[in-house]
Amino acid sequence: MFKRYSFLFFAIPFFASAQNNHENYVQYVKPIIGTQRMGHTFPGATVPFGMVQLSPDTDTIPYEMNGKYNPDVYKYCAGYQYDDKTIVGFSHTHFNGTGHSDLGDFLVMPTVGALQLNPGTASDPASGFRSPFSHDNEVAEADYYKVKLDRYNILAELTSTTRVGFHQYTFPKSDNAHIILDLMSGIYNYEGKNVWTYLRIENDTLVTGFRQTNGWGRTRYLYFAMSFSKPFIAYGNKNFSKQQVYRGFWRRWDQSKNFPEIAGQQIRAYFDFKTEEGEKIKIKFALSPVSTNNALMNLRAEAPGWDFDAVKNAGQQQWQNELSKIAIQSKSNEEKINFYTAMYHAFINPTTYMDVDGSYRGLDQNIHKADGFTNYTTFSLWDTYRALHPFLNLIQPKRNADMINSMLAHYNQSAEHMLPVWSNSANENWCMTGYHSVPVIAEAIVEGNTQGFDANKALDACIATSSNRNYDGLNYYLDKGYIPIDKNGTAVSTTLEYAFDDWSLAQAAKKLGRMNVYNEYMKRSENFKNVFDSSVHFMRPRLSDGSFRKEFDVLTTNGQGFIEGNAWNYSLYVPHQPEQLIAMMGGKKRFVEHLDSLFTMHLPDEFFAETEDITRDGIIGNYVHGNEPSHHVAYLYNYAGMPWKTQERVRMILQKQYHTGPDGLGGNDDCGQMSAWYIFTTLGFYPMAPGSGQYSLGSPAIDGAVLQLENGKTFEVQAINQSDKNVYVKKVLLNDKPLDRLYITYNEIMNGGKLVFYMSDKK
Amino acid sequence: MFKRYSFLFFAIPFFASAQNNHENYVQYVKPIIGTQRMGHTFPGATVPFGMVQLSPDTDTIPYEMNGKYNPDVYKYCAGYQYDDKTIVGFSHTHFNGTGHSDLGDFLVMPTVGALQLNPGTASDPASGFRSPFSHDNEVAEADYYKVKLDRYNILAELTSTTRVGFHQYTFPKSDNAHIILDLMSGIYNYEGKNVWTYLRIENDTLVTGFRQTNGWGRTRYLYFAMSFSKPFIAYGNKNFSKQQVYRGFWRRWDQSKNFPEIAGQQIRAYFDFKTEEGEKIKIKFALSPVSTNNALMNLRAEAPGWDFDAVKNAGQQQWQNELSKIAIQSKSNEEKINFYTAMYHAFINPTTYMDVDGSYRGLDQNIHKADGFTNYTTFSLWDTYRALHPFLNLIQPKRNADMINSMLAHYNQSAEHMLPVWSNSANENWCMTGYHSVPVIAEAIVEGNTQGFDANKALDACIATSSNRNYDGLNYYLDKGYIPIDKNGTAVSTTLEYAFDDWSLAQAAKKLGRMNVYNEYMKRSENFKNVFDSSVHFMRPRLSDGSFRKEFDVLTTNGQGFIEGNAWNYSLYVPHQPEQLIAMMGGKKRFVEHLDSLFTMHLPDEFFAETEDITRDGIIGNYVHGNEPSHHVAYLYNYAGMPWKTQERVRMILQKQYHTGPDGLGGNDDCGQMSAWYIFTTLGFYPMAPGSGQYSLGSPAIDGAVLQLENGKTFEVQAINQSDKNVYVKKVLLNDKPLDRLYITYNEIMNGGKLVFYMSDKK
Repeated sequence: MFKRYSFLFFAIPFFASAQNNHENYVQYVKPIIGTQRMGHTFPGATVPFGMVQLSPDTDTIPYEMNGKYNPDVYKYCAGYQYDDKTIVGFSHTHFNGTGHSDLGDFLVMPTVGALQLNPGTASDPASGFRSPFSHDNEVAEADYYKVKLDRYNILAELTSTTRVGFHQYTFPKSDNAHIILDLMSGIYNYEGKNVWTYLRIENDTLVTGFRQTNGWGRTRYLYFAMSFSKPFIAYGNKNFSKQQVYRGFWRRWDQSKNFPEIAGQQIRAYFDFKTEEGEKIKIKFALSPVSTNNALMNLRAEAPGWDFDAVKNAGQQQWQNELSKIAIQSKSNEEKINFYTAMYHAFINPTTYMDVDGSYRGLDQNIHKADGFTNYTTFSLWDTYRALHPFLNLIQPKRNADMINSMLAHYNQSAEHMLPVWSNSANENWCMTGYHSVPVIAEAIVEGNTQGFDANKALDACIATSSNRNYDGLNYYLDKGYIPIDKNGTAVSTTLEYAFDDWSLAQAAKKLGRMNVYNEYMKRSENFKNVFDSSVHFMRPRLSDGSFRKEFDVLTTNGQGFIEGNAWNYSLYVPHQPEQLIAMMGGKKRFVEHLDSLFTMHLPDEFFAETEDITRDGIIGNYVHGNEPSHHVAYLYNYAGMPWKTQERVRMILQKQYHTGPDGLGGNDDCGQMSAWYIFTTLGFYPMAPGSGQYSLGSPAIDGAVLQLENGKTFEVQAINQSDKNVYVKKVLLNDKPLDRLYITYNEIMNGGKLVFYMSDKK
Repeated sequence: MFKRYSFLFFAIPFFASAQNNHENYVQYVKPIIGTQRMGHTFPGATVPFGMVQLSPDTDTIPYEMNGKYNPDVYKYCAGYQYDDKTIVGFSHTHFNGTGHSDLGDFLVMPTVGALQLNPGTASDPASGFRSPFSHDNEVAEADYYKVKLDRYNILAELTSTTRVGFHQYTFPKSDNAHIILDLMSGIYNYEGKNVWTYLRIENDTLVTGFRQTNGWGRTRYLYFAMSFSKPFIAYGNKNFSKQQVYRGFWRRWDQSKNFPEIAGQQIRAYFDFKTEEGEKIKIKFALSPVSTNNALMNLRAEAPGWDFDAVKNAGQQQWQNELSKIAIQSKSNEEKINFYTAMYHAFINPTTYMDVDGSYRGLDQNIHKADGFTNYTTFSLWDTYRALHPFLNLIQPKRNADMINSMLAHYNQSAEHMLPVWSNSANENWCMTGYHSVPVIAEAIVEGNTQGFDANKALDACIATSSNRNYDGLNYYLDKGYIPIDKNGTAVSTTLEYAFDDWSLAQAAKKLGRMNVYNEYMKRSENFKNVFDSSVHFMRPRLSDGSFRKEFDVLTTNGQGFIEGNAWNYSLYVPHQPEQLIAMMGGKKRFVEHLDSLFTMHLPDEFFAETEDITRDGIIGNYVHGNEPSHHVAYLYNYAGMPWKTQERVRMILQKQYHTGPDGLGGNDDCGQMSAWYIFTTLGFYPMAPGSGQYSLGSPAIDGAVLQLENGKTFEVQAINQSDKNVYVKKVLLNDKPLDRLYITYNEIMNGGKLVFYMSDKK
């Protein structure tokens, strides 16, 4: 049973773009979706691909307790859990839907009464500065968040620009009002994560500083400039650093009170005010990856005034512009909510990572200037190469090309001479497996979207990345054609991922006429065969001596050479050669039996416990939608001659995995990958093998959609007679001509036109 | 008894400037002077005012042992102690003669044999990588240092440019040769001082990185680029960090060996080579306060080639050029050694603190560009306002003006809106007392040396600095005219220092016609009277209620309201109003009795123990030359009508406090202040009250000198009939006219001319 969440519909101002005959799509965005349980989304304010994600943190659970991993921290990847009853404060950076985390920089909390400088506990909020709150008093919209802090009777409102978080706090009358700036707080914090923090009081309305952390990003800096709408009358801080610091003649100052320059590992500062009943204190909080001067430059460029509503309206207008790129027709309000919230979630990460003048911190920790492109970070590529980047390549090709420019800058700055695996604020965290920058770049090359970069140099970067013999079993892969399980814990899945990435690289090489590269990488792309045990028809861990390992369990994820998936799922991971896969699996009949069983079997609890990022409600048989490796799987029926099974499965997944409640995501949104899957699948097609230039057809779940393409053309999807029951596609017309295949191409969409599905309840 | 040190005289190449009829002065520079006991000088390589001071460290004693201050650390302010038998390595930054310390960045050590990655102990060097050495195999010249590392049979040679340390190691034949790069090592290190270190292997001859420390400089960064003349065949590191670090997918790499990107709190790296007998491996090690890219820029700009001797010759030529500014005549080789080594020590600090393109890290931690001036740091102003800056203002006016430009930049970047107290690499460490940027700036304004800055704005900065009521008792000083001892530990001496600084500010205001300021600060400058107890004729601690504190000991330094001096000494600290002081002290006779007693009394051991920076040999009665507050004292006899006593005292101090041995400095050189005192006094005059435009006459200790002034003029000093016995001045001619006063002026010198002393052995 799913809990359903009733949304209040707020009056939203009439948008400029509504004059372009667009519906107000912002009204359908519900940032609260995914904030309960496994979604790991955040409800706060951000603009599309913004540097700032200003959002409430309901807890700041330490990563470790008594030196050991604290499993509770996992819930707080985005800082907020819907079931929590208290808010600790509002911090400025959050990932959307990750399964490990970082960030939560610069937590701000308004309070009244006796000053408290520790957060307190959820069970006893009065032990610190945190406040209880109620969802009844909470509003979460695109780039707008509002909540009443019950304890203080303070109304908190948040909005943002790309680089500036804008706070508006409505206070009660108080002679003892405070704004706390907590430089210690952070997501996935542990002792020693804060490497250094620094704070300067520039004057009585301006504060600057930075935070340096050693977390998921190993050497990470973030700078800020914080501007108050009203002068504070006093300020101070408490230094919680355990670290020994040379004091010497610093002792002459009382640094705890009204001293303008504080530095240390663990610091919380406060600013005192007197407020009238209903008085608003506003804060503009600008970020920069480069310096406090640049943060101030960003602040002045993006948020020169103090009109909160104007900033909010401008932010929501940005969202409206982005959301308008796909206008869907649906009778269902819930469908619109799901769709536009998916669009919203797809347009949060990657994030802008440069100042308004183009300067940014590079992977080499030097300051660079982005020359002719917007620099981005937050590339969760193991997730997002599958559907998010293909989606951006289609609907945001300029941004996607800039993301590739950013990846190439990362490559140029990389000591390992590699494209990003997981790019996190001028750091590589190496998270997950494969070299999935390659399919993102390959797809762009294949489809000719190479704005701002040299395709051949980009291909060279892909070749260099996939040739680093020190990287994750790649030497074995190159020498033996597979990674032995006795050498590498993810031997099988990584072999499969490399094979797919290599295939995509080959497609780009072919496009560029580099046939030697094409031939070499096509050969490599066959390596999936080397981990397939034809005697059992499963992908299977193999030893260095060439034999398959005797111990083998097709349902367990742990210790079998796979990552976030078991053999049952990963045996289907050959997205680039489905025909070969089907033949290898024993032909279409046997293959479909395997596929069917995936969706229908009961996964025993012992194995379910191993799956990550998914709830029991969210699992479909042994198909774990919250884990990406099977995202293409439902489309494989197309290649086995049973497209109706693709059609019914994808509709079932849409139904089961996406809802409009806070628990509406069946697993981590994973920086928009889950949402991009939803968008493609809802539109009726999916990029099974990025780099192919093709989208496999599924079953559109809406009545129609108009895609506004960046080249000025439109591509329309119609689903005639579509309903929850009419999930089967009887006929497809592309530009009024019958389509005799189960895919459409990137070029067909980009040329503009119309794709009409005729739907039925009959297989 | 003093130990005397026999210098070997090395053949030094004939200098270009020798063609300008200058003697080779570099031959007289003995950097080893002051490396034994209290001098706190370093023997290694540096160019004048260079960013790099590449020098051997004989120990890296921790600042704390078991959480308590380790008094042994004091000996290692400059990293090297002459009595030590082992060398740990060669690091790139050292203060000259400080009494607290920092730096010692990036220790490099060549070794052969089994790799060891800990330094070992002095008593058991084989327990680590350090090597025994002998002074017999050691050569220390200006910008050149050579030593044989006995354990490894490696000859180490060092030289430098302004921003690049140049190493040349001559190896024996070895299949197992190493260069260790120790990022943990540092001077005045303690756990937690290293905040972060970072290392990148760019290729097999280039390494970059940085070190961030929290020491005397609280938030200090230094970046490097390290270039090898020969590719290393392997490399690795050991991470000694205690701090918990997120490892995650970093685990997939073996980061200890041949992995190109290392970060953490405590790291030592190594680079492996095979060497032939006598093979030289050279290293160019460039620094930058800004970034690794800038370090590389500095490297390429200053040291493009690999010719060690060429770099050394160029560095020594720079020294020759600087030393040639004063050509002395002396029959004594020792005198020349003392004089040119003093010149050398006076021209080490302040240090250049910007990259070749003018960019530097500001006090606000932002990157700035020095516009039209060279930016400097290492301002130890409590020491250097007395004689070093007056000396630079005379003989290096352009540099001194640039130093003031640097102070004003510091002021503009200061959160406290103050000029520097002790500027340490983009940090203020607040060391010592007073606001002695003021007399440095005031003197330059009074004497018209204001190149590159606006004198009125500079005066405004002085006024703002001396008006910060939060600073060190200044509120009491402003309200009561003195600082009460119950409010401030250095109440008396700080009152006296403020009074002098205020007087100098008044002189600058007068020069600029700002008579209101002049009048206000002249009034403030009389505050010395408020801590003078006329009933006992001593400066004395006073309580908030206006009464003098009952407990009073004129000989003890501790707890009496003075810093680095007792009441006996500090009662003479009114350099700006000696006539008033004499009157206050009871007239000339009584005053001279006090002065005489200072030099002749025996300071009991219990009080001697409290003096800092001085050896028993170095003390003269109760006069502690190693502590600066009495540096003007010997000249006070002039104002009491007994100039012959000034003359004999200053000669006695020169004799007792300055020698050519490693122990040749009687106290810390204090960033050149002790050396500047020596130079002035040897020349026969001394700036008793900087800002007065006057120099008090003493007794020249050489036969003559020619000062080559920056304006192209020369000023000649002759001391007719001067000898160790003929210390008394019978007559002085300035430009052939009898001088009927006991001072000369800045303008008289700068106008060029000749000052002739006629010396005698009669008073």
